[in-house]
Amino acid sequence: MALTTAPVAQRVRAVLRDRIERGEWPAGMALPSEAALCREFGTSRGPVRRALSGLRADGYVVGGRGRPPVVGRVVPSQSLAEFRSFTEWARAEGKTPGTRTLVLERRAAASSVAGLLELDEGAVVVDLVRVRLLDDVPIMIERASFVPDVGRYLFGIDTDTCSVSAELARHGVPLVSARHTIDAVSANRLDAEALGIAAGAPLLRERRLSKDASGRPLEHAEARYRSEFAAFRVDNRVPGASPIEVRAS
Amino acid sequence: MALTTAPVAQRVRAVLRDRIERGEWPAGMALPSEAALCREFGTSRGPVRRALSGLRADGYVVGGRGRPPVVGRVVPSQSLAEFRSFTEWARAEGKTPGTRTLVLERRAAASSVAGLLELDEGAVVVDLVRVRLLDDVPIMIERASFVPDVGRYLFGIDTDTCSVSAELARHGVPLVSARHTIDAVSANRLDAEALGIAAGAPLLRERRLSKDASGRPLEHAEARYRSEFAAFRVDNRVPGASPIEVRAS
Repeated sequence: MALTTAPVAQRVRAVLRDRIERGEWPAGMALPSEAALCREFGTSRGPVRRALSGLRADGYVVGGRGRPPVVGRVVPSQSLAEFRSFTEWARAEGKTPGTRTLVLERRAAASSVAGLLELDEGAVVVDLVRVRLLDDVPIMIERASFVPDVGRYLFGIDTDTCSVSAELARHGVPLVSARHTIDAVSANRLDAEALGIAAGAPLLRERRLSKDASGRPLEHAEARYRSEFAAFRVDNRVPGASPIEVRAS
Repeated sequence: MALTTAPVAQRVRAVLRDRIERGEWPAGMALPSEAALCREFGTSRGPVRRALSGLRADGYVVGGRGRPPVVGRVVPSQSLAEFRSFTEWARAEGKTPGTRTLVLERRAAASSVAGLLELDEGAVVVDLVRVRLLDDVPIMIERASFVPDVGRYLFGIDTDTCSVSAELARHGVPLVSARHTIDAVSANRLDAEALGIAAGAPLLRERRLSKDASGRPLEHAEARYRSEFAAFRVDNRVPGASPIEVRAS
């Protein structure tokens, strides 16, 4: 039952996944043969095949059926267990985040945004529209509106290179919690242009209401992700289930 | 700071939202005038307008700008804080869940599914494909694969009318935890046919690996939701933030 008795297939899978995630085995690289993997791990074909099958299930390995299996391009998924910024997520994935600011302006809030930010209709907000990149590929367009007493700090920084969340924290107004609403939409003409995709393509949409420590809404944002480059990940349990998971092996 | 001192606008918003959610005010109904709402709640126009603006932001109210505001059709969102079945979610929303089973069969697992379920490649699984309905509207198609020693129980029930999760629990193999991966896809021809929509429409996809109490994977499912009828909801906080939220008012 101890960790060291975990099935061999799981150990092989973990080691290979690690090589792929660290880029030691880059996307497109042909995998070693099953025989070579058996020799390396001192095991039989069964565990090696189960490990490869698991890696294939997670997108780490593609090909097969006659063609030699190769390392796949893994779609990075964001855990929603904690509220993290795009920049923090990108860095945790070992990728380089990038930003192109399209709009930073004061304007009258749309009625729906004013309601969410608990402002009077027509109140002024600070709007920030940015394209976010991972390793130079545009993967998301984000339209954020900030309450004015917080959004004003954005005019003091370069929103292409500085972290907005870090800047707000520096001014004593950190974004502490958020409610995320996640659905799917078709790319409109503006999305398509900003992301370099066809209009009508499916996008993963995250609408987010971010609050300070007292629960006051500071930001409403709508992020639209190219689905082939992003997914969200959530782990949960049935109500009342013990949070401690004991893995029998 | 007590609840009774919550801003008037918030109380008005909560009361009206409750009327809409309970169906007392059905979709399409014209809202009472601002003057009538001011009289009912004994307040001025400011809080009533903020309440309406908030309801509009959440989709509870539509129209306006010259046209009289009416009650909107609210897109139900599922919280991912806990692992709940479609049936439980539908009932919590006050809606009637429905199911049309398309496929229930034993078959060799696809390589990707075998990997996720930690089975040998080519192992037999029990596949269950169902269209799920809310108030008679098809909103989701779900393709699930169960490990054979668990899936066999499905042949003993009517999968249109019985809860699969309840049936598994009855046999001592409850689904206890799950990892959900959420992204967006285009409807393929089969999705479109099952859901009565156009091929290419954006769908909200949830892939789910469900486990028993020991962490053993029992089910892999892929659910594809019509986005105009469903969204997922997650509340989270920055790492290290106090879980207690005190709302200043």
